[in-house]
Amino acid sequence: MKKNDLETQFAELKTKVETLTKEGAENKLSMIMFSGDLDKVLAALIIASGAVAMGMDVVMFFTFWGTPILRDKGKKVGGKDLMGTMFGAMLPKGAGNLKLSKMNMGGMGTAMMKSLMKKKNVASVEEMLAVAGELGVKIYVCEMSMDLMGFTREEMIEYPNMDFCGVATFLEEAKSSKIQLFI
Amino acid sequence: MKKNDLETQFAELKTKVETLTKEGAENKLSMIMFSGDLDKVLAALIIASGAVAMGMDVVMFFTFWGTPILRDKGKKVGGKDLMGTMFGAMLPKGAGNLKLSKMNMGGMGTAMMKSLMKKKNVASVEEMLAVAGELGVKIYVCEMSMDLMGFTREEMIEYPNMDFCGVATFLEEAKSSKIQLFI
Amino acid sequence: MKKNDLETQFAELKTKVETLTKEGAENKLSMIMFSGDLDKVLAALIIASGAVAMGMDVVMFFTFWGTPILRDKGKKVGGKDLMGTMFGAMLPKGAGNLKLSKMNMGGMGTAMMKSLMKKKNVASVEEMLAVAGELGVKIYVCEMSMDLMGFTREEMIEYPNMDFCGVATFLEEAKSSKIQLFI
Repeated sequence: MKKNDLETQFAELKTKVETLTKEGAENKLSMIMFSGDLDKVLAALIIASGAVAMGMDVVMFFTFWGTPILRDKGKKVGGKDLMGTMFGAMLPKGAGNLKLSKMNMGGMGTAMMKSLMKKKNVASVEEMLAVAGELGVKIYVCEMSMDLMGFTREEMIEYPNMDFCGVATFLEEAKSSKIQLFI
Repeated sequence: MKKNDLETQFAELKTKVETLTKEGAENKLSMIMFSGDLDKVLAALIIASGAVAMGMDVVMFFTFWGTPILRDKGKKVGGKDLMGTMFGAMLPKGAGNLKLSKMNMGGMGTAMMKSLMKKKNVASVEEMLAVAGELGVKIYVCEMSMDLMGFTREEMIEYPNMDFCGVATFLEEAKSSKIQLFI
Repeated sequence: MKKNDLETQFAELKTKVETLTKEGAENKLSMIMFSGDLDKVLAALIIASGAVAMGMDVVMFFTFWGTPILRDKGKKVGGKDLMGTMFGAMLPKGAGNLKLSKMNMGGMGTAMMKSLMKKKNVASVEEMLAVAGELGVKIYVCEMSMDLMGFTREEMIEYPNMDFCGVATFLEEAKSSKIQLFI
């Protein structure tokens, strides 16, 4: 092989490696918070803080039943239409108001789990959300869900790193992540 | 380093880069449609069309409760055994017949959500499935689920890019995808 | 380009390729077994054995409602506190005791599905777990869930490749996997 040939081939290989590096997944975890159940949200937040502790970036997308978790129970928003008022009344008002996905038993199972969590020194969802904010976990809220359920930005919690987005933002983050979970 | 040594090492590196390129994930999204709930199917189809818009390939695997979504409500199939007839009667007949995973409230919540979707100009699941077909979203239906629930190919909807497969096909697609979701 | 320059650049490129190889995903599937529903566990175990058949490593993390699946119905453990005794009584005792996520209908739907599985020669969850063990599927059990629900290691099934772990172990496995699923 001539020296010039080697140089040309070397340059080609270099480009390929750069493409691989650029397209490769980042040390990042993306989670779609769809369900909004107490147990699933708890699991997701434990995974999130564990991932940050390991040096990963963490991005959480709150959509559908996950959206009301981010409502601030202390904020009141008026001027909603009938549907918005109904959804507002029926859906949980914030992270302190979630139910178990199983064995809720009219609230008894959920109360039992919460008392158990306290006894075992497991932080509440509200506390974990605050910690996630301090740890730099990024939260995106699905604009379409907000619109569908009649939620406004004004009734959401204060969180250091929260944005409102559509599906494209989620997909961009997810496809550059090493781990993606639909929860 | 001698020139020949460099050439040998270069060839080795080239092989490694080729392996990395071949084994690397494609710009593809794989989703397992397991649950068959109106809200989850809706989310999955919004993600699917968003991914296509971003230039990704999209593959959806319908299994278990996801399978009846693809039934054509206009098609009647006879000759089923007792179990097949019972499943046929109890499971939703097509995408127009799904329920919310939460707050179904005897159908009232689902009806409310559907009227809300219409008001907010969100397409129905049936419409979104048709669009997905036009956009080139690939659909696989799990043969084992079809067999278990007594569904036949004849009662499925017309869809431009639909095949019937087993778990191996799903895994091949999933492991070459940048994003995989179990929905 | 001088020969020495080429050598230096070659060495740099080699390092980059080594990093890419090291950070790249392994031919591995990680699943979080969160829900513990008969149908979802069944799907996960079918995916697991399919993946092994394709030469993949498979790791399953049992957490929350997934934890009681691994209880051995023949083992009795005393000395639990009130909460532990209550959870022990209310949660399914082992893989033979699971319910469908939908259409359980007071146990009728689940019984129907089980009889259907037998008729169609689909192995039971208990049988599939045993096969997974023989195939080398790795099982991790979430220590926090065990603690929360008051389960002890003594009441778990015998399984060839089972360990108890926290969230960090899961994340390490998941981020080096080609496929991750939250089930």
